[in-house]
Parts: sequence; C-alpha cells; structure tokens
Amino acid sequence: MSERIYNLSAGPAVLPEEVIRKSQEAMWNLNGSGIGVMEHSHRDKPFMAVIEKAEALCRELAAVPADYDILFLQGGASTQFFMVPMNLLDADATADYVVTGVWAQKAVAEAKRFGKVHAAATSEDENFSYIPSQGAIKWSEKPVYAHFTSNNTIFGTEWTDEPAPPAGVPLICDASSDIFSRPIDVKKYGLIYAGAQKNLGPSGVTLLIMRKDLVERASTSLPTMLQYRTHAKEKSLYNTPPTFAIYVVAEVMEWIQKNGGLAAMEKRNVAKAKVIYDYLDASSMFRATARADSRSRMNICFRARTPELEEKFISEAKRRGFSGLKGHRSVGGMRASVYNAFPQAGCDALVAFMAEFEKANG
Amino acid sequence: MSERIYNLSAGPAVLPEEVIRKSQEAMWNLNGSGIGVMEHSHRDKPFMAVIEKAEALCRELAAVPADYDILFLQGGASTQFFMVPMNLLDADATADYVVTGVWAQKAVAEAKRFGKVHAAATSEDENFSYIPSQGAIKWSEKPVYAHFTSNNTIFGTEWTDEPAPPAGVPLICDASSDIFSRPIDVKKYGLIYAGAQKNLGPSGVTLLIMRKDLVERASTSLPTMLQYRTHAKEKSLYNTPPTFAIYVVAEVMEWIQKNGGLAAMEKRNVAKAKVIYDYLDASSMFRATARADSRSRMNICFRARTPELEEKFISEAKRRGFSGLKGHRSVGGMRASVYNAFPQAGCDALVAFMAEFEKANG
Repeated sequence: MSERIYNLSAGPAVLPEEVIRKSQEAMWNLNGSGIGVMEHSHRDKPFMAVIEKAEALCRELAAVPADYDILFLQGGASTQFFMVPMNLLDADATADYVVTGVWAQKAVAEAKRFGKVHAAATSEDENFSYIPSQGAIKWSEKPVYAHFTSNNTIFGTEWTDEPAPPAGVPLICDASSDIFSRPIDVKKYGLIYAGAQKNLGPSGVTLLIMRKDLVERASTSLPTMLQYRTHAKEKSLYNTPPTFAIYVVAEVMEWIQKNGGLAAMEKRNVAKAKVIYDYLDASSMFRATARADSRSRMNICFRARTPELEEKFISEAKRRGFSGLKGHRSVGGMRASVYNAFPQAGCDALVAFMAEFEKANG
Repeated sequence: MSERIYNLSAGPAVLPEEVIRKSQEAMWNLNGSGIGVMEHSHRDKPFMAVIEKAEALCRELAAVPADYDILFLQGGASTQFFMVPMNLLDADATADYVVTGVWAQKAVAEAKRFGKVHAAATSEDENFSYIPSQGAIKWSEKPVYAHFTSNNTIFGTEWTDEPAPPAGVPLICDASSDIFSRPIDVKKYGLIYAGAQKNLGPSGVTLLIMRKDLVERASTSLPTMLQYRTHAKEKSLYNTPPTFAIYVVAEVMEWIQKNGGLAAMEKRNVAKAKVIYDYLDASSMFRATARADSRSRMNICFRARTPELEEKFISEAKRRGFSGLKGHRSVGGMRASVYNAFPQAGCDALVAFMAEFEKANG
C-alpha cells in the first residue's frame, strides 16, 4: 500500500493506522462471519457485539456511572445544538451558555428558537482567543442547564477545568474536539456530546453520555427520532444506526485502552503540544494566537510574520508531506490539529520543518 | 482474505465485492493523496471530488432534471418521516399517505404531529400482502403532498407503477428498499428519499432527490439542520457529512453505471426474483406470501408448511452459507432479500438448496 503523509486536519482527522488495517479486514469479513461489517444487519449478533463493545469500552475508559446512558446518534454536534434545547428548554425557561467560539454561537442560535438564552460569559471581545476565568462567568438565576464547548477548534483554545454552574444545574458539554484526549469526570456533567470525527472515529456518528433523568425529560409530542428517550430505550437501535462508523469507534476505543487509557492519552497529548508551543514561543517568525493559559492541546493555531510567509509556509509544508495546516477560513493563519491519533513523531517532524523554514526565510 | 457467504439480509445488505475492495484501498490512501478517505477534511479537494462524483453519477443514472437538488443527509428514512411534514405540512393542511406497511405507518404517525393526514388507501385489511390498485386510492380534496413507500421490506410487496395523485400534488416516495433497482421517472416526483443501506451503500447516509421549490418551502423558524434549504444551499456540507458512507455510495453508483445503469439493474433483478418465485410457485412445501401482482423483486417473503419446517430450513440454510433468511420478527417465516448487489448465482444456489431441502423433508 502506498505511503501516507502527516495529516493535521481539524476533522475528519487522522486515525490510528492499526485501526484502519483492522477496518479493512472487517469490511471484507467481520470476525469470520463471512459478511463484511458494512453488510451486517444491525440486529445480527456480529453487529450487536460491535455496538456492545463500543459502549462497554466507552463506559470503562471514562468510568461512566450506571445512571448515564451511552448513545450513538447521527447528525453531528450540529444536531445536538437543537436537540438539547428541544428536549430540555421550555419556552419560558432559561439556559446558560458560555460562548467561547463559533460552535458555541451556533449552539446559542439554535437554543434561542426554543427558550431564553443567557450568555454567562463570552470571550468574543478578544476574538475568542481565551477561555473566561471561573470568576468572569455570571450564571443566571435558575438556568435549566449550563452549556459550554470544551475545546474550540477554530481559535485553538481549550478549557482546563469545567465551568462550575450553580448546584443542581446540569452541565452540558460539546466535547467534539477534545473528547477522550484526557480523563473526564463524567459525574460533573448532565450530558457530554461529541461528533466522532476528531478523536473517536469517522464522521457520521455522535457519541452522547447522558444522565438518565435528562434522557427522559422531553415532551412526548416531539418527533420520535428527536426524543433522547427513543434512542436510550432501544440502545441506539431504534432505527438503523451508522454501523460501520460505530465499528470504527469501537476499534479506536480499544486502541485508546491498549495504549493506556485516557490518562496516557493526556500525557501523550501534553508532550505533543508542548514541542510545538515551545518552538512557537521561541520563534521570531511564528507566534501562537491563543492566550497562554487557554491554549488547546488539540488545535494549535499560529501565525507567521506576514500573510505572504504564511502562504509560502503552508504550500512548502504540503510539498513536504504536512497536510491540513491552513487555518480556518474565518481566522486565517495556520492550525496544526494533533488529536489522539496524531503521532509524536509528526509533531517533531513539523517542528524540524518549521525551524528549517524559519532559517531559510528569516 | 477469508471466504464470504451469501448475505440475504434485508439491510444493511450485501455490497458489490469490487466496491469493498476499492473502499479498503481508499481507506488507507484515497487516490494517492496520502490520507485515507475517512481522514480527509470534508472541505479538502479529494473529498469534494468524492461528493461531486456521487451527485453527478446519481444525476446521470436517474436522469435527474436540473430543477432537483440531490442531498446526502443523516438519520435514515426515519428522520425523513418527520422532516417531510415538518418542512411541508402546516397544521391546518392535509397530506395523503398510501399505507402499505409498517414503514408507511411510521411515516403517518410522525406526520400527524404536524398536520392532518388522510389515508388515501391501505392494504392493512390483508396484512399488507398487496399493493392497492390505482382505482382503490381515494385522494383527499387538496393534499399538500402524497406519500407512498415504493417497496415494503417486511411484507415483500412493491409498486409496479407509482400512485397517481391529482395534478399539482407533489408525490413523495420512501424508496429506501428499491431505489436504483430499476429506472425511475424523477419528473413524476416532488421528493424521493432513501436510506442507503439496501441498494446504495452502508447505513448512515440518506439520499434525497428533491424538487427545488419544495426545498425552499419550510418556515425559517425551524432548527437550521432540519430545514432542507440549509443542506441544499451548502451542497450537503453545512456540517460534516458522513464522508466515508458518501464515498461508498459514489462507488456503488459507479458500479451500477459500469454494469449498464438502472435498466440493466432491472433486468438482472427481474431474472433473480423470477428464479425464486418460480420455484416457490411450483413447490408443495413453500409458498410466497405476497399477492402475485404485488410481489417485490427486492424482498421475497415466503413460508413453509409448518413453523417447525421453517426453523429447520433457516438453520440448515445458515449452515450451508445462506445468511439473513429469517423473516421480520413481526411476520415470521422467511425472507430472501436480493438487492442489486446480490448475485444471480446466489439466487440459483438458494433455489438448488430449497429443492434439496424439500426433497429431504417433503
């Protein structure tokens, strides 16, 4: 098979190579069943074993308590932006949102269709380059939930600790871009949701870890597919789930487990990000854009001295086998996305290339 | 790689083997890009080429006119059951449904949450074993649309011609289980939707062929993700689409094209179904359950003389390499699903096995 390059895409993103190899085999014949994983009925034993494995590994890796459901849904985080308020926010009630970027803004826009939204804090004043401090967050009187985005792909910022809403207020997190990159204390949350396509697998499946009392809260007049309870009751098999995507998620979770679990992932990710941020901090050509205390370990956003240098850097990097370094179109510059499956060797190689580029163009 | 067996599953279902082989390769490295198809950003050129290929082939195979959008959404037909009325049916308006099985009933149940539903015809009186005649369909005064299910997987019935609603009433079809198994006259339809997991690819993506005026009809107060216009405007890239599933759909469409297109698919499918129905009609042990004029070419439902014989047949068949023959749990008996990718050789082998079984157990 042909050579692969360093993929620094913000998502869909690089997957562990051994997961790809296993997926290739399973696609032809899943565990000796004589049928490929894409072709199995979702109600057949071989696929039931796959979804049970995905759930069990998720529960184990994050120590998910028994009073939480684990769901595999479709539609990405964008679907959760409206399903959360549709299920939980009545017209006369208020939900609190901490607004740290474009995805949080989109979540707010959908919530406003259903009820009242209170922006408990925002970092828009400095183009979302930082995470608000706990003290800067002003919760409303009685929010029905508090929503935040744990990592902001576009601006390269990430929460270190969760925001702490008033007691009894369920904390809801869009964890799409840093889920399972570090340990997570599930008990602190009412709902954690994440599109799989950064740290967990391919696009097309969304993981939800949701407290059972919240699962049951929605009006039964909602469309069946849009009530969380429908999917919880049927263990994500109310309708045909995205079977292959769930297979890959199970394999990725097994890869995380084999590599030491979430604590080991965090250690790797800290080391990977450090080598790049250290270079940026020492560079006279490049600089990181996020405030030092708010830097993401997943998406490292940086600029060069001039737009011309940036363009040259991105295009030379591409020729040298570093793909996906262009920053999001709304902010420009560069972005190195180094999710769980991106190797330390790739971070080292990138830094070596940056040094070479800086020397040649300094 | 290990041997594969005959997969008669009703869905997810068998895929063309050459599509699986190509998918395995693309998963490691898509077209020499150095990045696997699951790992490409949906906004990168290599993936853009994939989704454009899927759309172009769809348009070509079904001769889709320019005033129709082609969309790739998530959530399966079950999501369309509510998105259709949510976008098109006002509370005081009426939609007509022809009820030919469980999936049509589910579509009706969701539509009733939004407006009035008129059952224009139903075959429930004989356990959905037939398709109502055109004369038996009683349309309401001014339906905003007319909905039907072109093939009924559970009961093994299929429409030969579309129902013909009054002039100007958009015809909407859940074509999940027979799409692209034969030519389709798109101009007759306002919307055709189909979960991919029978004739088009893996589960996790839904194809929509939708007249542009209907795309634009919904209230803009709906959640962004639930307005058809959102996805049409962004060419199915408003949010991250199920990229790998779309890749496989493009490959399956190319396979259909290389094998002669929809007319050739129909010819193959007629021949495949005929060999099985002919055997059933001649058998003194087995009988087809659908009325002769309503028989599906996709899902061939049949019974044996006794439940004991059925159980023995299914279990012996399984040992002989025929998987997925058990009928839907709601009706019992047997079901042979022989979608586009199921080969003639498999139908011949199944009939040979049935004859052997009948002789041994007659």
